[in-house]
Amino acid sequence: MGHDFAYPPVDFETHPDRYKHWKLSVDGPVATLVMAVAEDGGMWPGRYELKLNSYDLGVDIELADAVQRLRFEHPEVRVVQITGGLDAKIFCAGANIRMLSMAPHAFKVNFCKFTNETRTSIEDATDHSGQHYVAALNGTASGGGYELALACEKIWLIDDGNAAVSLPEVPLLGVLPGTGGLTRITDKRRIRRDMADVFCTKAEGFRARDALKHDFIDAAWPRSQWEEGTARAAVDLAAEITDTLPLKKDGPGVALPALERDDTDDGWSYRFVDVVLDHDNGDRVATVTIKGPPSDGADADPVRGADTWCLRAFRELDDALLRLRVNHLGVGLILLRAEGDRDAILAHEAAMLRGADDDWFWREVQLFVARTLRRVDNTSKTFFAIIDEGSAFVGTLLELALAADRQYMFLDDDGENSVLLSEANEGVFPMASGISRLEARFPGDRDAIEAVVEVEGEIDAETCEELGLVTLSLDDIDWEDEVRIAIEERVSLSPDALTGMEQNLRFGGGETCETKIYGRLSAWQNWIFQRPNAVGDRGALSMFGHPERPIFDFNRT
Amino acid sequence: MGHDFAYPPVDFETHPDRYKHWKLSVDGPVATLVMAVAEDGGMWPGRYELKLNSYDLGVDIELADAVQRLRFEHPEVRVVQITGGLDAKIFCAGANIRMLSMAPHAFKVNFCKFTNETRTSIEDATDHSGQHYVAALNGTASGGGYELALACEKIWLIDDGNAAVSLPEVPLLGVLPGTGGLTRITDKRRIRRDMADVFCTKAEGFRARDALKHDFIDAAWPRSQWEEGTARAAVDLAAEITDTLPLKKDGPGVALPALERDDTDDGWSYRFVDVVLDHDNGDRVATVTIKGPPSDGADADPVRGADTWCLRAFRELDDALLRLRVNHLGVGLILLRAEGDRDAILAHEAAMLRGADDDWFWREVQLFVARTLRRVDNTSKTFFAIIDEGSAFVGTLLELALAADRQYMFLDDDGENSVLLSEANEGVFPMASGISRLEARFPGDRDAIEAVVEVEGEIDAETCEELGLVTLSLDDIDWEDEVRIAIEERVSLSPDALTGMEQNLRFGGGETCETKIYGRLSAWQNWIFQRPNAVGDRGALSMFGHPERPIFDFNRT
Repeated sequence: MGHDFAYPPVDFETHPDRYKHWKLSVDGPVATLVMAVAEDGGMWPGRYELKLNSYDLGVDIELADAVQRLRFEHPEVRVVQITGGLDAKIFCAGANIRMLSMAPHAFKVNFCKFTNETRTSIEDATDHSGQHYVAALNGTASGGGYELALACEKIWLIDDGNAAVSLPEVPLLGVLPGTGGLTRITDKRRIRRDMADVFCTKAEGFRARDALKHDFIDAAWPRSQWEEGTARAAVDLAAEITDTLPLKKDGPGVALPALERDDTDDGWSYRFVDVVLDHDNGDRVATVTIKGPPSDGADADPVRGADTWCLRAFRELDDALLRLRVNHLGVGLILLRAEGDRDAILAHEAAMLRGADDDWFWREVQLFVARTLRRVDNTSKTFFAIIDEGSAFVGTLLELALAADRQYMFLDDDGENSVLLSEANEGVFPMASGISRLEARFPGDRDAIEAVVEVEGEIDAETCEELGLVTLSLDDIDWEDEVRIAIEERVSLSPDALTGMEQNLRFGGGETCETKIYGRLSAWQNWIFQRPNAVGDRGALSMFGHPERPIFDFNRT
Repeated sequence: MGHDFAYPPVDFETHPDRYKHWKLSVDGPVATLVMAVAEDGGMWPGRYELKLNSYDLGVDIELADAVQRLRFEHPEVRVVQITGGLDAKIFCAGANIRMLSMAPHAFKVNFCKFTNETRTSIEDATDHSGQHYVAALNGTASGGGYELALACEKIWLIDDGNAAVSLPEVPLLGVLPGTGGLTRITDKRRIRRDMADVFCTKAEGFRARDALKHDFIDAAWPRSQWEEGTARAAVDLAAEITDTLPLKKDGPGVALPALERDDTDDGWSYRFVDVVLDHDNGDRVATVTIKGPPSDGADADPVRGADTWCLRAFRELDDALLRLRVNHLGVGLILLRAEGDRDAILAHEAAMLRGADDDWFWREVQLFVARTLRRVDNTSKTFFAIIDEGSAFVGTLLELALAADRQYMFLDDDGENSVLLSEANEGVFPMASGISRLEARFPGDRDAIEAVVEVEGEIDAETCEELGLVTLSLDDIDWEDEVRIAIEERVSLSPDALTGMEQNLRFGGGETCETKIYGRLSAWQNWIFQRPNAVGDRGALSMFGHPERPIFDFNRT
């Protein structure tokens, strides 16, 4: 089934003017995202058709872009209605099965991860930005279509005797509703697990009456009242949100221009972020360097706009991570470096965090930095923070080092090489588990956290190691060799074992819906994505749409 | 690599008199379990040698038996020291790699699950029975050897300049420390994740000094002081435990005789439990019937011993589950039935739970029933409770129905067919997540729980469905067909997709170390156990012990 198909590189940048599959419109406090997937607009032209509003990564990249832009460009929006734009009686048929069945395993995994991140970003907007998402299902939502609805705060379904919500992955495809479906029905919508079991094995799903009875949806209207009913409910909801908004949130918005990316011989660079692939290590190591704002002191009062350092730099970092994940599968290790003027970084950060108290824009910047850091946590590549001479791992950038799997720090004679904590390290960028990276680093050890937080000023390498802020500090004699050996060792190990190990070590402690989606549900889906019963020549995913039935090995594992 | 090797059936019953690999001795409050694995005592004779105290399922069946017997037969024991009995400087080298590399995927998964359950039973004894386990590592504990130690309350390591603790799975085998290792180092021992990362990629591990510094062990003694130091520490610990024991716990113990199992044409039966395989459904369905105690009323004052109904019946159920898992891979669906005299069941249960307040024996019975119910939760087969006419799903047995994925209930005309709640359903048999099965059934919905608990007396089928206690009630007209169709549909679905789905739906809500081990860590390990980088012809697990190096596909997924 073409599992070695070498797919073309993916570009994650887009703009509403270029959307093929979505129409975004804004009417005062209510925005509408109409899904009308172009059948011939798939990412791999000629290989599959995106029928019945089924989606591929390209469709989801546009959705992710819309969610992001709504937060920055349309602060006046309170409710985002997602609805279907097809004439057919279907809202969305879920992920495109032909695409999934031909995609290599790694692509399937990355596709699911990105779509999951888009859905958690929808919940993040609902929870923290006062932009509540509503799935206005004007037709059947099946599989990924219903999972998209599950990521919304409310699910409304047309009651026309035909439209249904369903998760047919298990009965029809032999895979899981892996885009959060299984987790959200139990942990978010709190549906009884035996009803969830019935629902997830019933290919045709539930129409409005049963769906409402068992809490799979929140409201339904007959066809004759659908337009008026949903419109009124959206406006009512918008008013309700405005009344309870903790932060005034109105226009004008801040437009997000395209990032300027220059491809180089060894990688690519943006304004504040460089990516360099290490040819000596067979392109298995990439160095990602993030640079601070200009050091002319202007950042004590940074520009309030898309060019402001923190937003720009983290948008670049986010794009770099996505490209590394999907277009550079061979990269197993990312070395994180931070450069720049420490005072300028801290001044900028202080302005951002101070601004976040009463200005929605700075609040959005803070939330976006948090999401990008969570993108690091969810990236199945090793991260080593390289805290070398002249480094600038302070505050927000130190958070990036704390997101890494290890921290190597150069121990100089005079203690110049140091890190510096700020309020940025005390929970303003929470992990998916809801705790700060310092809390995750020292699980349950308040003393260790206090010891770190109490230090005034810069912390040199020796102290960092003592306090447990870095894994290893190395002096001039050892630095180069030890770091080189650590890198060589890391990239010699089984990449699969490392992925599994890091996923477990990164998410110690408590769990949330989000960590369960990435850590538990995704692991089971990845397992199933390897199993002959799904992806073998006669597996259910491979055989979908063929006249023959799949053939299963019925032994239970 | 022989992945289709058809292994012989496994028997889970044993006795210290027959142990090949362990020596159990008891000296007052301190018991010692000496691990001295017989090299030629493997489960599949001639296929591998159990060198360096490496273990297979047979070794772990003996360990599980010892842990269980210590609780019932040696209530005076406060501390159980696990130590090595080899002359070599090794405590335990972990799971036998030759065995693992030749075992079929399903066996690997079942093997890991059983060893995980043995380790959680060690923690259960420590937490609830006042029998604290100590790993007295008189030599190197690597891989599963150290994971066994991690399940103990304390880890002591000999400091002889040689012995180490290590988790070399990732660097040497390309798989995970999947017997709880990755979860317990972060969530139980709360080790910093970058140090955990270093440790888990360092094949040789840490010797006493570094292990102590980073909390991988709790104490160390040099060789000259090892015997005396550990002996004294064990006695001190025992005294400390006795002082804080909530329940007087002393001899004489209750011996656990072998279960009498009769093999039949269609399955097998014990005294209170029958297993029948359904040949009409290709042996993919098994009916497990559990029968109540004799109805002569004697059970209001049940015998305090191994023959007492609840202990005997649940030991039989436990054995049946294990045999179904490992010896009957083709069984995908288990129908649970309960029969017997309701009054006798409830009288027996009341005596058990009353007794559990001040008699260690009844407390142990209660704890064992809870463990067996958790064995159901962790069994990767579907469970349907069939609440037919004449059923006896009351109290403890209703808990079994609530553990099932679905409940089908016969709706009779006169309401005779009913279920009955008791205090057994209000948290005395907690799930691995720490909550009761009613709480898990109605997540966050106190009203629904109250409504169920408030009902006085028996609850008929119609009311059960209204209250959400059963999935479906069906009358005479529909019962037979609907149940038959549900069964046929279930066994037609992809068994892998069902395993993944059930694992996610069964464990909604909060997580614990235990649920993370079964739900998250195991899923990642299962994925890796399918990956060519581990189990392919040149994968690390397959190549272990061969002179050639493994060959990896370095693309990161």
